[in-house]
Amino acid sequence: MPRLAGVATISFARGIPAPECLPVSELADCAKEALERDGSVALSYGSTLGYAPLREWLAERHGVEPGRVLVTNGSLQAFHFVLEAVGGEGRGVLVERPTYDRPRKILAAAGVELGEIPVDADGLDVDALERVEGPPAAFLYTIPTFQNPTGSTLSPDRRGRLAELVRSRRLPVLEDDPYGLVRFEGDPLPSVFELEGGIDVMYSSSFSKTIAPGLRVGYAIVPEALASELEDLVASTYITPALLAQATVYEFLRRGLFEPNLERVRGLLRARRDAMLEALDRELDGRARWNRPEGGYFLWLELPGGADAAELLTHAAEGGVTFVPGVDFGGQPNSMRLAFSFVSPAEIDEGVRRLAGLLAATPAAV
Amino acid sequence: MPRLAGVATISFARGIPAPECLPVSELADCAKEALERDGSVALSYGSTLGYAPLREWLAERHGVEPGRVLVTNGSLQAFHFVLEAVGGEGRGVLVERPTYDRPRKILAAAGVELGEIPVDADGLDVDALERVEGPPAAFLYTIPTFQNPTGSTLSPDRRGRLAELVRSRRLPVLEDDPYGLVRFEGDPLPSVFELEGGIDVMYSSSFSKTIAPGLRVGYAIVPEALASELEDLVASTYITPALLAQATVYEFLRRGLFEPNLERVRGLLRARRDAMLEALDRELDGRARWNRPEGGYFLWLELPGGADAAELLTHAAEGGVTFVPGVDFGGQPNSMRLAFSFVSPAEIDEGVRRLAGLLAATPAAV
Repeated sequence: MPRLAGVATISFARGIPAPECLPVSELADCAKEALERDGSVALSYGSTLGYAPLREWLAERHGVEPGRVLVTNGSLQAFHFVLEAVGGEGRGVLVERPTYDRPRKILAAAGVELGEIPVDADGLDVDALERVEGPPAAFLYTIPTFQNPTGSTLSPDRRGRLAELVRSRRLPVLEDDPYGLVRFEGDPLPSVFELEGGIDVMYSSSFSKTIAPGLRVGYAIVPEALASELEDLVASTYITPALLAQATVYEFLRRGLFEPNLERVRGLLRARRDAMLEALDRELDGRARWNRPEGGYFLWLELPGGADAAELLTHAAEGGVTFVPGVDFGGQPNSMRLAFSFVSPAEIDEGVRRLAGLLAATPAAV
Repeated sequence: MPRLAGVATISFARGIPAPECLPVSELADCAKEALERDGSVALSYGSTLGYAPLREWLAERHGVEPGRVLVTNGSLQAFHFVLEAVGGEGRGVLVERPTYDRPRKILAAAGVELGEIPVDADGLDVDALERVEGPPAAFLYTIPTFQNPTGSTLSPDRRGRLAELVRSRRLPVLEDDPYGLVRFEGDPLPSVFELEGGIDVMYSSSFSKTIAPGLRVGYAIVPEALASELEDLVASTYITPALLAQATVYEFLRRGLFEPNLERVRGLLRARRDAMLEALDRELDGRARWNRPEGGYFLWLELPGGADAAELLTHAAEGGVTFVPGVDFGGQPNSMRLAFSFVSPAEIDEGVRRLAGLLAATPAAV
């Protein structure tokens, strides 16, 4: 196809919020107030497991003791800590397939054996998990709600069965839930953490999708004994987390800005998802399949069997649109992740048009 | 000795700045301005190797390309990255003895073999380094200026010889220099990085001692190829560093607040060092030996041979004063680190009086 000269590429690759999602001026005020009110704490060492008022807020929200809350520089850092503390290196870790590429890479780099459990339209295949044999894994890493990369959500029935399975097998789980609050339709589902009671299920989330990713404020709820154990590891990694951002988030919460901001962000993302679904219906009906996530950042698109999304991507720059091939997440070659979070609804419309053009122009890949 | 009932312990253990060192209200203004001016960058993902304007400022200050500057969540995090990238695990790392306890622990936890080079009143014993044989170490970790824990500074002569040795042997060095700018008397010395030209010497420092530790803004200057290599490792660790703090530091620098703040901090620390030296002269003359650092946070005190500072510490709570025994840093049993950075001059005076009382009351330890 002809190269789109001088036209900016439209990114369905970047799983980041659109700039208008970021509550910039509110955060500017909150940062100032946070330092004026509690600067001597926020600007000093200490608070190894996170800014105390924020730990308390999170503890109350999740109905746990503050001693179980670990606030980190983004939730990926919490994943590292849990992995190191739980000792995944020796025992293998169960993950979804496909799943978020960063944990996959971290586990591979650490030489951890992966046990992969398929994800379908209803989320993690709990039957397949039940059939897993061999020595017990260190833990199961799962993203049950608006999963990265598929946008799939674990169904209510499977949630209950997963919680039961965890109870009966004492299988440790790390439930990663960064997108759960970014639901723009349908009823919220209980987390696996809630259903199981938070005994063997650990829970991680962050304010990256609900306030701003650059703040790098993530957290994990772990057993209290593990939190104490982690104190040394955290101190040995960075002494103290980034407290200015944590105190700023706390101020944002304290002012009651969180829920209204979440409503605003949900609206912005819903408009983007709708734009993507409409454009896909118009441009690709019958030529590909995709899902309809009720929240989050992503949808999952499958080309006809035999198609190669990675090959297609090599032509993407010419086509003026980009995405992440499913294989990067452990998915099938004919799949791709489309992020609707970053670009505007108009750009989404145009981007899907370009994607359709790209598909039409590169039959070898399809 | 009688327990000091109801009296707060005076800490010579905490190597942190006194609360009055922290420029709280200036930072509050800077945080607000930083977000208002550049919030869409500071609040989003990206900037893996650090906030670009801050990287440029640091590059100019150190006379290097911005591509060589890695800004991290505190400089300890930079130590981890360098260790992992340079592959210290397989080859051993040279460190000073005594040295900063956190890197010692990190290296021990990673199973890295330590080659230890003594430190004396003139800093690292370069003759001893020259005599080291066997397969080359991955790198030498050194704190040449106002070292943690001893407060020793590498003499001008030894600096030149170390730079020469690095050149002739191509020995990689990580020069950690968090205290260099906190000099309150004497002329500044060139860094080993400057003397050697920054070929095999990497340099790390932070704004923890010059602005505020809770900001967690540290940095390393590394070869450009290494910086590119580190991009993946950094992204895989925390995606993006804590940009709000980095943008706040940049705003502080941009407003010209750095040098005046440094002068203020130097004055506060000088008064503390002076109070400690005066009190030691008065209370412990002839009963212990100590040095007179021209900057930094610490001095090093040696009890008579045969004394046991760790044993003494077990009585410290009763004595109302605390410190870190030298053995925690790899030092001799009769040594201790006294931090004059945290408590007030009046508390320092009282704390040394208590320390003298503790020594008098526990002859078994001395």
